[in-house]
Amino acid sequence: MTQFTFDAPTVIRIKRDGGVLSDAAIDWVIDGYTRGLVHDEQMSALLMAIFLRGMTPGEISRWTAAMIDSGERFDFSDLRRDGKPLRLVDKHSTGGVGDKITIPLVPVVMACGAAVPQAAGRGLGHTGGTLDKLEAIAGFTAELSKDRIRQQLQGIGAAVFAAGDLAPADRKIYALRDVTATTESLPLIASSVMSKKLAEGARALVLDTKVGRGAFLTSEAEARELAATMVELGRAQGIDTRALLTDMDQPLGSAVGNAIEIAESLDVLAGGGPADVVELTLALAREMLDAVGIDGVDPAQTLRDGTAMDRFRDLVGAQGGDLLQPLPVGAHAETVTASRSGTMGDIDAMAVGMAVWRLGAGRSTPGGQVQFGAGVRIHRRSGEPVVAGETLFTFYTDTPERFDGAMAELDGGWAVGDAAPAPRPLIIDRIT
Amino acid sequence: MTQFTFDAPTVIRIKRDGGVLSDAAIDWVIDGYTRGLVHDEQMSALLMAIFLRGMTPGEISRWTAAMIDSGERFDFSDLRRDGKPLRLVDKHSTGGVGDKITIPLVPVVMACGAAVPQAAGRGLGHTGGTLDKLEAIAGFTAELSKDRIRQQLQGIGAAVFAAGDLAPADRKIYALRDVTATTESLPLIASSVMSKKLAEGARALVLDTKVGRGAFLTSEAEARELAATMVELGRAQGIDTRALLTDMDQPLGSAVGNAIEIAESLDVLAGGGPADVVELTLALAREMLDAVGIDGVDPAQTLRDGTAMDRFRDLVGAQGGDLLQPLPVGAHAETVTASRSGTMGDIDAMAVGMAVWRLGAGRSTPGGQVQFGAGVRIHRRSGEPVVAGETLFTFYTDTPERFDGAMAELDGGWAVGDAAPAPRPLIIDRIT
Repeated sequence: MTQFTFDAPTVIRIKRDGGVLSDAAIDWVIDGYTRGLVHDEQMSALLMAIFLRGMTPGEISRWTAAMIDSGERFDFSDLRRDGKPLRLVDKHSTGGVGDKITIPLVPVVMACGAAVPQAAGRGLGHTGGTLDKLEAIAGFTAELSKDRIRQQLQGIGAAVFAAGDLAPADRKIYALRDVTATTESLPLIASSVMSKKLAEGARALVLDTKVGRGAFLTSEAEARELAATMVELGRAQGIDTRALLTDMDQPLGSAVGNAIEIAESLDVLAGGGPADVVELTLALAREMLDAVGIDGVDPAQTLRDGTAMDRFRDLVGAQGGDLLQPLPVGAHAETVTASRSGTMGDIDAMAVGMAVWRLGAGRSTPGGQVQFGAGVRIHRRSGEPVVAGETLFTFYTDTPERFDGAMAELDGGWAVGDAAPAPRPLIIDRIT
Repeated sequence: MTQFTFDAPTVIRIKRDGGVLSDAAIDWVIDGYTRGLVHDEQMSALLMAIFLRGMTPGEISRWTAAMIDSGERFDFSDLRRDGKPLRLVDKHSTGGVGDKITIPLVPVVMACGAAVPQAAGRGLGHTGGTLDKLEAIAGFTAELSKDRIRQQLQGIGAAVFAAGDLAPADRKIYALRDVTATTESLPLIASSVMSKKLAEGARALVLDTKVGRGAFLTSEAEARELAATMVELGRAQGIDTRALLTDMDQPLGSAVGNAIEIAESLDVLAGGGPADVVELTLALAREMLDAVGIDGVDPAQTLRDGTAMDRFRDLVGAQGGDLLQPLPVGAHAETVTASRSGTMGDIDAMAVGMAVWRLGAGRSTPGGQVQFGAGVRIHRRSGEPVVAGETLFTFYTDTPERFDGAMAELDGGWAVGDAAPAPRPLIIDRIT
């Protein structure tokens, strides 16, 4: 008698029973949740049903589009440099331990002539967030208006900003997933990442899909499927999207935390830094440049000649940061020393990530404070020789009562042995 | 380093991944939810995981016990009549359309010498609630204190009361299930029913497990499993528990609503009324009497000799009701008439239940108002002869704008044909 309309239990029931949600049902439930008509408890029941029943490619695509449509979609295609459109390209990592790659990478690709509009996130759980790291720089702000993002892209070629009005449905759903054990779902991860990344105005996108103990997906098969799903979602929206599958069994670099990762990034930008951080930065830079048709430039050169460091100073300066101020370091330190000589074995990325989180570098509730000076320095990395009595790890925190819990997390996550573990490739595959 | 404690995502994750929840995890999550430490969105994710993953018998038993422990558990075992303990017995129906059986049944078993402590519910969705029906009697209240329940059991042998402080965890979970499409789950139905029924102080329990289009479980196999699960839960707690499996493909009796079902119940108590209502009332009465060792009395006699009617007047009077006041009838009526002669075919209980709900007799949100005078009278039941032009259904409501929606619900739920449909047994099986 009346026009057919949805209600939340009906939509939940379809997915609960293994059915396929129609485009109209997806649009209705995402819009309703954004506007508060569908309640948290209803969305979380639906998320669990999606977690256990899965989604078809068509459902994932529509779910992503509906989340994009819940907010603003940036368009910077009118911006020009030397009469030509800006080469707008971004990178996203699915999250890892010690993953500070955005910080050296953005200035490297700026120095090579591309422009980067990056909606970045804050950390939750054992993986850190790029914004938490950058905010360790005195004065740095990621709260940029759309006009300011445009100005920065035009003026210096990059802006790293809090997602803000982009895909507000995703922001609500992301917070809910964290407290309802519905994070590690391929359709939900893919749609969450891509809704923000497709809304930020880049024309090309490179995905760093992590696999291993410290990643959200620990199986290579699942990580491959996630990468392929996200690449497909991007291409369906006309965005040149490609992915690298990279190792996250062990932490990236020697520094895990917030300010301590900025310091390591500055080492990389100065032409030094850990080999794995440099390798991944350059591999991702080459993909980004290729995706926007920039060739004939060597990103490694920008690290050697200081131009990437100059662009990082431009970026930090444009967003209010002062690199002349000292970076914060936790007021208290403790060390783990070697009880024997030998060779450092594998270091479990999850154990390190949890230890750093316990030290106060991460947050346990959305919106919570992080300690910028908290973190772990890894003095001997996998395969390096160890002498009995030397320092292997240093823990930093402002709240020394956290040391015990952090030590317990790291315990069992590393060992000194007689032989070096077999080396593993950092970059496992390339998915286009 | 610290004592192991639970958190909600960890508990949800265990069930999500198909694991078995430990006793300690169940106790923690039910207690936490009752006290507000586990949030609605977390419980609803857990409920969906339970819906899709199921529960072992051990989990269902502990979940039920934890819900009982969330509130008070009545104990009336000290009450005596003629020096002997009261024969405390109750009945519970899993819910159906036109299911007013409690109303004649309680006075019948009172008249036969048993005592009934009944925690009853209000309706939600397409099935009515016993309290909504009884509250159609002017002055009737179900908000009884524990002391008053004791007094009534001692004085007249029955009390029908709102569950109140019994199993408050169940009350919260029940409301959540309704809005999150997690109602039709065997472990959740069984634990919900039994947590209230095991807390109310009866020593024996008879379950009327409905199966068919108008029941929560439409498959006989599922209904049998539910009955067996509930019987086992009751027996594990030392309560003599047995179940009848009864048909709910068609509505019970000729009246569906609130006051209109009280009127039909009074017909039964006066020795008349529809045959199916009488049959089920007496079958359940015999089970209840047998369960508490009362033999040698014929419950049918109490309908013939008026003693059941006397006991009903006692019960209603003790709870403030005035049967001399006229029962409410919806201010507006519409009829459905026969367009041809023939024989009434099957009448779909769900279609009737939804029509009655649309007329205003049910509620769409917990705590909402019901219309006592709304309902449907079925003039020709399945198998009865029909003459073209005569009235088949009468609809009642105070809000005539509801007629269209109710008519649409009933549409297609019945037909007049050439031959009588094959009769089906009302009582399908007995499960002990």
